[in-house]
Amino acid sequence: MEQMKPEVDVFRRRLLAAGAGGAAAGLAGWSPASLAQAAGAKPLPPFAAFKDASRVIVHSASGIETRRDAFGTSGITDTDILFARNNLAAPGDSITANPDAWELEIDGVSNPRKLSVGDLKRMGIASVSMVLQCSGNGRGFFGHKASGSQWKVGAAGNTLWSGVPVKAVVAELGGVREGMRYMTSTGGETIPPGIDPKKVMVERSVPWTAMEEAILAWELNGKPIPLAHGGPLRVIIPGYYGVNNVKYVKRVAFTPEQTMANIQASGYRVRPVGVKGAPAQPSMWEMNLKSFITDPVGGGQPLRAGLAQVHGVAFSGGSPVNAVEVSLDGGKTWQAARFFGPNLGRYAWRNFVLPVRFAPGAHVITSRAIADDGEMQPELRIENERGYAHNGWRDHAVKVTVA
Amino acid sequence: MEQMKPEVDVFRRRLLAAGAGGAAAGLAGWSPASLAQAAGAKPLPPFAAFKDASRVIVHSASGIETRRDAFGTSGITDTDILFARNNLAAPGDSITANPDAWELEIDGVSNPRKLSVGDLKRMGIASVSMVLQCSGNGRGFFGHKASGSQWKVGAAGNTLWSGVPVKAVVAELGGVREGMRYMTSTGGETIPPGIDPKKVMVERSVPWTAMEEAILAWELNGKPIPLAHGGPLRVIIPGYYGVNNVKYVKRVAFTPEQTMANIQASGYRVRPVGVKGAPAQPSMWEMNLKSFITDPVGGGQPLRAGLAQVHGVAFSGGSPVNAVEVSLDGGKTWQAARFFGPNLGRYAWRNFVLPVRFAPGAHVITSRAIADDGEMQPELRIENERGYAHNGWRDHAVKVTVA
Repeated sequence: MEQMKPEVDVFRRRLLAAGAGGAAAGLAGWSPASLAQAAGAKPLPPFAAFKDASRVIVHSASGIETRRDAFGTSGITDTDILFARNNLAAPGDSITANPDAWELEIDGVSNPRKLSVGDLKRMGIASVSMVLQCSGNGRGFFGHKASGSQWKVGAAGNTLWSGVPVKAVVAELGGVREGMRYMTSTGGETIPPGIDPKKVMVERSVPWTAMEEAILAWELNGKPIPLAHGGPLRVIIPGYYGVNNVKYVKRVAFTPEQTMANIQASGYRVRPVGVKGAPAQPSMWEMNLKSFITDPVGGGQPLRAGLAQVHGVAFSGGSPVNAVEVSLDGGKTWQAARFFGPNLGRYAWRNFVLPVRFAPGAHVITSRAIADDGEMQPELRIENERGYAHNGWRDHAVKVTVA
Repeated sequence: MEQMKPEVDVFRRRLLAAGAGGAAAGLAGWSPASLAQAAGAKPLPPFAAFKDASRVIVHSASGIETRRDAFGTSGITDTDILFARNNLAAPGDSITANPDAWELEIDGVSNPRKLSVGDLKRMGIASVSMVLQCSGNGRGFFGHKASGSQWKVGAAGNTLWSGVPVKAVVAELGGVREGMRYMTSTGGETIPPGIDPKKVMVERSVPWTAMEEAILAWELNGKPIPLAHGGPLRVIIPGYYGVNNVKYVKRVAFTPEQTMANIQASGYRVRPVGVKGAPAQPSMWEMNLKSFITDPVGGGQPLRAGLAQVHGVAFSGGSPVNAVEVSLDGGKTWQAARFFGPNLGRYAWRNFVLPVRFAPGAHVITSRAIADDGEMQPELRIENERGYAHNGWRDHAVKVTVA
């Protein structure tokens, strides 16, 4: 997800206020010690204090990335290491104390209504595995210092979500009203006083047909969604970039137009370097085809020559992943990898492996995914102002030395 | 898993020693406060201190059960709420500090060898989802006060394991020697001094053909296996009761006979009430066909009349689950439930749902699973001395009141 200018300011202002001894709303839990540390080692921010510090990279008070060597091979990314990114400070954690009481407004249907999570739980159930990925995942590989968190591969994880299908709720309320072309979700963050809501509010529109697979989720990886990941209720749109999966969702409306909020109108738009965001540019909706290596990751001791297993993950928000190839020589030659583990569905990632016999020397290891429709993951990134949607295999390569 | 008499004694002796101020090996971390509490509220024991106390039931210093209302609907049981049961005190947690250094002896193959986890990681990879279930899950429903933890439904969870296939390792070592009929795994626990190892050691034999799907696992639910669940290395035998999945495994041997250890020879044997365990009785190997309701769970406020969703899980170690039926009237009438969420494979459990319209009054809700081969989950438990293998649907029913 994108670090929007107004949001950066909000965070900075609060940090300064708190550092000067002020009690700043939204910063409850920041001890003077953790604030002092923040300048250097970047401790876990309070909203994500439960994360496993040894297996994540803290970019900022609102951005945490999974280390490439932490993904493992089980298929699911544990919540303790899952990346987290907030565009606005999370609401107070009192909202997750009684999840069933959280209320959601549904609009743009025949019978608009306010429903509690308790009501939603009675209306249906679905569970979906999907890759949750920040639009800017891979931004750290761009050469033009694209603004925002400098994620490498770890602003993505494979997750399990459970909740009620949006279409079951919509059916209960008489269906979507005629002429509505978007599903627009609004987050429950508190807008800081003195700031124009339109500039910072988290409100995202997606094509209304996305409701076919969308769910209103209260569970992540088998437990109630923690605040850091959008609990008590988050809209989940399988195959879409993270920002569309609005946290603490308080309103879902079917609308004739996209929201005018900056996060939609000018934010999360793909445009050439140096160009400002605008509504006519492509929005960060469906994720593209991507894969990356998770083991080995390079660095540290040289690897031992001989038998080894090269692992990685492959996924797509569009045509499902069908195959993966791995190169040990920076893309000159490729070998077919094998998927392993349960197939969690088309929006999940698949773990792959290629058994190899490493010869001494330097190796550049990378992977490229191939989709059902024949599309192949590209070699190069598409340069763009905010460093979005990076799926080029060259930048995602790892360099290893074999002794 | 079973609480064997010698093990109970070992735990009791240590608790007493520690309570008197003695420094007891295996009890590091028990504070006097937690020991004092242990008599009453049963706090989390140190080996499982990371568990979510609000969502588990602590039976003893070595047994923790997941609450029925904690399972959720995502398909996977989070490690923080997964049941835990130790037959012997876990080794010191230093063994998980550097997992790759842990050593495993492989015997009964053409070229027996000692291999480190680091070596194993180079030899292959697999990932499997499976139900981990204690042999005594459901013991709390028996009427004869069967000895051991009085588990209801929660000594089971659905888990993801990742490691090297046993058969890949065996192939590297030249294959299983002729005449071997069992795969015998030995745990790395320290045998307390003064006790005959055979009486308490955790060493289990399973038919050697189980190696076809077995893995030597270093990862649980996407992270290195914690000590409480057998890290750094655990043998995982999909479809088999928990006790066979030996923790901190230090030796896997292909053997002509089953081990003489009590845990195999007389423990985990199904026999009539009042009869002692003996090698000729059936051993707790493959799990039987089972399902239970996870929502609603009864108790607390009466439910609201009208639309509701009845959820549960269904699984089998044998012929895979094919369908589930739900009864709202204690088994008089049945309706077909629907599976939802990803199918994680034949050894995993499947979540099911039946949408219902609750009428005011009392309801007895239960479920029965049907396997691919036509077998149906039975109504009644099979009475047996240790309260093993309970899959009768009648005892697993929940009683609810609708207002």
